[in-house]
Amino acid sequence: MPATLKLKLRGDAKQKHGFEIGSLLQGVMMGAIDGEYADQLHESNLHSYSQYITEGAEGIEWTISVLDQEAKEKILQPLSELEHIALRHRNEKLDILERNIIEEDYRDLIEKYYMVDGDPYIHLRFVSPTSFKVQGEYSLYPTARLIFRNLINRYDEFSKDSKIYDRDLLDYIDGNVILTGYNMRSIRFPLEGVNIPAFMGSIRYKVRGPRQMANILRLLAYFGEYSGVGIKTGIGMGGMKVIKSRDGGGRR
Amino acid sequence: MPATLKLKLRGDAKQKHGFEIGSLLQGVMMGAIDGEYADQLHESNLHSYSQYITEGAEGIEWTISVLDQEAKEKILQPLSELEHIALRHRNEKLDILERNIIEEDYRDLIEKYYMVDGDPYIHLRFVSPTSFKVQGEYSLYPTARLIFRNLINRYDEFSKDSKIYDRDLLDYIDGNVILTGYNMRSIRFPLEGVNIPAFMGSIRYKVRGPRQMANILRLLAYFGEYSGVGIKTGIGMGGMKVIKSRDGGGRR
Repeated sequence: MPATLKLKLRGDAKQKHGFEIGSLLQGVMMGAIDGEYADQLHESNLHSYSQYITEGAEGIEWTISVLDQEAKEKILQPLSELEHIALRHRNEKLDILERNIIEEDYRDLIEKYYMVDGDPYIHLRFVSPTSFKVQGEYSLYPTARLIFRNLINRYDEFSKDSKIYDRDLLDYIDGNVILTGYNMRSIRFPLEGVNIPAFMGSIRYKVRGPRQMANILRLLAYFGEYSGVGIKTGIGMGGMKVIKSRDGGGRR
Repeated sequence: MPATLKLKLRGDAKQKHGFEIGSLLQGVMMGAIDGEYADQLHESNLHSYSQYITEGAEGIEWTISVLDQEAKEKILQPLSELEHIALRHRNEKLDILERNIIEEDYRDLIEKYYMVDGDPYIHLRFVSPTSFKVQGEYSLYPTARLIFRNLINRYDEFSKDSKIYDRDLLDYIDGNVILTGYNMRSIRFPLEGVNIPAFMGSIRYKVRGPRQMANILRLLAYFGEYSGVGIKTGIGMGGMKVIKSRDGGGRR
């Protein structure tokens, strides 16, 4: 059921369209969808969507993902029909150049990654500022436990057929998910005049032990491409990608 | 007593002269100094010198530091008199363009940094691959405790007038040295056919509490410019700099 809408955008070349405008895009999203559903999202603790924006060599791309059928109909549908995107706050209009929808089934995810793979390396890229809050403090540097614990919670909220949480799994992660490489920096995510401490970049883990353990974590990582990870994934933080390069696994 | 010799070098433009040749330069150093003293260094557990090389926009620079008078006389003296540097292993001769010696006294360090400062931010740059070994495993990402524990040990080995180690200080570090920013990547240091997992980059901490606590850690950090930090500082790892930018403290 998870689905992603990717919109390639073109804006005023003199303006920035990176993660800084994440909260403006949440505003655009809320304005485009049914008001009652928007209120419901606002009040609920469920993270049924995530969104982030990237600006790079390939242009500006807005990625909106949903985790259930209702969010798909009520969020992706109206957003995919937008003619353009109006950032009223800065009086700018963004043209939509391309629209793509990617959709998977939780069963597909399980079959593809949990049953089949076996690569012990998991390589993640945080493509928008990502942060975790632990006992009231921001955690500027993630541990495998923080990342996967967050993904497990999100997965279990939405998957009907399978639940992953298990205390022993968290202990397994502590002892067997080994940091083998990273390239990260801290960064601030601007939100309503406050700067939230966060990080961006890539990280690579090796999962020791039976391949099923790497597979379950890889399944969670691919789920994380839809759910986002960490705090404030609704306003542009925690955008996550799995880097698919088996051959890169042995290096570094 | 700590002192540093910096040699600006010029080599074959087609060759690399970065941290990769750290162990070759240890060979150069051992060849230049008195044989008996070289044996003594080899057998001793004291880290009375550190050295690393950097290659950047400002050229190639070899930095050799010593922590006591004997090492100053027996290492820096002969190295400062070298006509050129022969990397026999790769049949290359490096010209010496500039020689600088910087010398301080432990009392100067204490007066300059422990008694006077008061900036709560400590900003460090690891200019050559740096690594810690904890219970047999490489620690690819440093904690404040790892960094300062290592510097405390090194300081206490060489300082005659003052000792810093105190169990309560380590606990203080755990609770009050807060990571506020970083930009780091993992990197491998090549040594005799093996690649040692390490990291390079910069990290910034804020020290909570009385300014004396920040000052003692800053003193250690400046000492670290001479001693190096972490493992294998004799063969080019663990080169460290304190970034002096008070105004940068509030940002990021």
